[in-house]
Amino acid sequence: MSAESSKPSCLVIGAGGVGVIAAYSLFRADRSEVSMVVRSDYDHVVKQGYSIDSCDYGTIENWKPHRLYKTAEAASASGQFFDFIVVTVKNIPDGPKDSTVHEIVRPVVDSNHALDPTRTTSVLLIQNGLDIEKELLEHFDPNEYNLSILSGVQLIGSTKLGAGKIVQKGQDRLSVAPFDNTDVKGVERAKLFITLYSNKGHNLVDCEPNVKYTRWRKLLYNAVVNPTAALAQLDATRCLKFSNGGMSTENCIWRPGMMEIIAIAASEGVTIDPKEMDFFLDITKSMMHKPSMCVDYEKGQLMELEVILGNPLKVAERNGVPAPTLSVLYHLMTILQGKIKESKGIVRFDEEIMDIAKVVE
Amino acid sequence: MSAESSKPSCLVIGAGGVGVIAAYSLFRADRSEVSMVVRSDYDHVVKQGYSIDSCDYGTIENWKPHRLYKTAEAASASGQFFDFIVVTVKNIPDGPKDSTVHEIVRPVVDSNHALDPTRTTSVLLIQNGLDIEKELLEHFDPNEYNLSILSGVQLIGSTKLGAGKIVQKGQDRLSVAPFDNTDVKGVERAKLFITLYSNKGHNLVDCEPNVKYTRWRKLLYNAVVNPTAALAQLDATRCLKFSNGGMSTENCIWRPGMMEIIAIAASEGVTIDPKEMDFFLDITKSMMHKPSMCVDYEKGQLMELEVILGNPLKVAERNGVPAPTLSVLYHLMTILQGKIKESKGIVRFDEEIMDIAKVVE
Repeated sequence: MSAESSKPSCLVIGAGGVGVIAAYSLFRADRSEVSMVVRSDYDHVVKQGYSIDSCDYGTIENWKPHRLYKTAEAASASGQFFDFIVVTVKNIPDGPKDSTVHEIVRPVVDSNHALDPTRTTSVLLIQNGLDIEKELLEHFDPNEYNLSILSGVQLIGSTKLGAGKIVQKGQDRLSVAPFDNTDVKGVERAKLFITLYSNKGHNLVDCEPNVKYTRWRKLLYNAVVNPTAALAQLDATRCLKFSNGGMSTENCIWRPGMMEIIAIAASEGVTIDPKEMDFFLDITKSMMHKPSMCVDYEKGQLMELEVILGNPLKVAERNGVPAPTLSVLYHLMTILQGKIKESKGIVRFDEEIMDIAKVVE
Repeated sequence: MSAESSKPSCLVIGAGGVGVIAAYSLFRADRSEVSMVVRSDYDHVVKQGYSIDSCDYGTIENWKPHRLYKTAEAASASGQFFDFIVVTVKNIPDGPKDSTVHEIVRPVVDSNHALDPTRTTSVLLIQNGLDIEKELLEHFDPNEYNLSILSGVQLIGSTKLGAGKIVQKGQDRLSVAPFDNTDVKGVERAKLFITLYSNKGHNLVDCEPNVKYTRWRKLLYNAVVNPTAALAQLDATRCLKFSNGGMSTENCIWRPGMMEIIAIAASEGVTIDPKEMDFFLDITKSMMHKPSMCVDYEKGQLMELEVILGNPLKVAERNGVPAPTLSVLYHLMTILQGKIKESKGIVRFDEEIMDIAKVVE
């Protein structure tokens, strides 16, 4: 499909635990040209490559994708057309403007368009949360740019431990599909990506066309357990057990919050069986796990708050669904997010005037 | 009134910012014999006394009350009858049994009873929260022990900075009254205490007989702003401003929570004007202040969670008043309290069995 090679070309943006395993999976399947944008670890990876300890692929030393770029701008200047732009950075629409997804992909979407306006560019968002495609649709006309926007919902326990060092503990299970399930071309592109990504006997990758269901279902855990863990700065199991009689976290925060997610989803025509709550509650009872918002908060990094909690609450408000539990969790979390923004210098709080003095856009 | 002296005798238990200023106020007024139970600073204070920097009384060096005891047991063994037992320790009914208020006062209540069963013992609780007298009434029959239990509601910005070192920044305003406003003897005792405590032109001390009102009103702030600050580990002003548009903390957590307090109070026949919310919200807008629960949490000390949030919610449940905001705040806070209990060794969490393995009573 590419001018230089008969193989499709993939560019993975975001070189954390998810991005490196995604790039390696594509590379190992050997059905595409794999490029990566590696920001902070660039010099290390150019020299030594990645050291990966993976439950799916074993121990891999000094691995590099076909091409490495330090920035998306550098990738866009390479003269290469990227059939798939795989975005694995966190989705923080309330963060600095240059770290929003549409700004991150813009150079490559533009260079693709300039290279061949008739060829399809697929942007695959392997990210949590709801309504994350809307930001892209607002900034790029899919017809003009020949864009196909794909959803990636993933379960994987993969973490970057240090420069170029990745440990993956849970099997990679990835669902790829167009956000819009009437998008016939999108389904084709998703299926193509699945063939590029699949490593039989190792990872599990499928096309689950009901993306709305997949995303709302995952919010049962992410919108409820995640903020609780961040607020308490504890793993989910302790959050569960450090409560009155060991039951009040489950009965007075998590189940009420999950029922609100089910009700909001229902108002959008998405039916989630309440038994799914037990699936996610069982995870917190059977595995010591610190949810990502808690990890990010403890590292002083911005959290995926808006896409995980803010957007579902916008839907609740629009459809008139009461969500008192999620509302308190969300508004407490905005305070934590503000605290991180202050520590990163994104906002400055002036104790003299007792107000926010400056917001860096 | 005492056998050894014509003056009434007061024993202050708890030698933090509140307790030391209480003892000094009584001492300075010079109308009572003042004893203190000083636990951790005992050796320091016996040698050097207190160093106090007070907005009410100026700078005082090397001050000691008339008598110092290391424990309540030692005070009870002194052969002295204490007309007033002034309790200024934090009220943590869910903490270790020996730090509950009834266990703390027990030796002195018992020795008073043995010395003179006909003479009145007043226990004054200068403490936050609701229904704090009930624990004492459950453990001591007021008739048998000739007990009069008094409420002290205080505004004071007093802190212990180090061994024997106290800084008081806000004027001491203390309301003393019997918990039961039909208790005629209690009113007399409260008025007597006020004469002992009052230092005209310095502190402000009055008898506000409507204790239920005073305590519910103070919960507007304590039950709502306090837990928010602890969960965010921030001063109240940042909690207010680090929110969507600078308004969502006020509009989506604090006002809803305060309205629930007003509704629960109303179900108990206590009317609080909603305008009182503005009084407390204005405090958060006009003064940089870190509420006590936040300070305690950051120090790894147990918080007054049950008397400030747990007890109002019990009333809400009993009277069928919905309190979704307070409920989420409370149940999140029980997780934080559990975290402190783990760090203090009061509970032990076993990561193998993923449950609490031991609770120290």
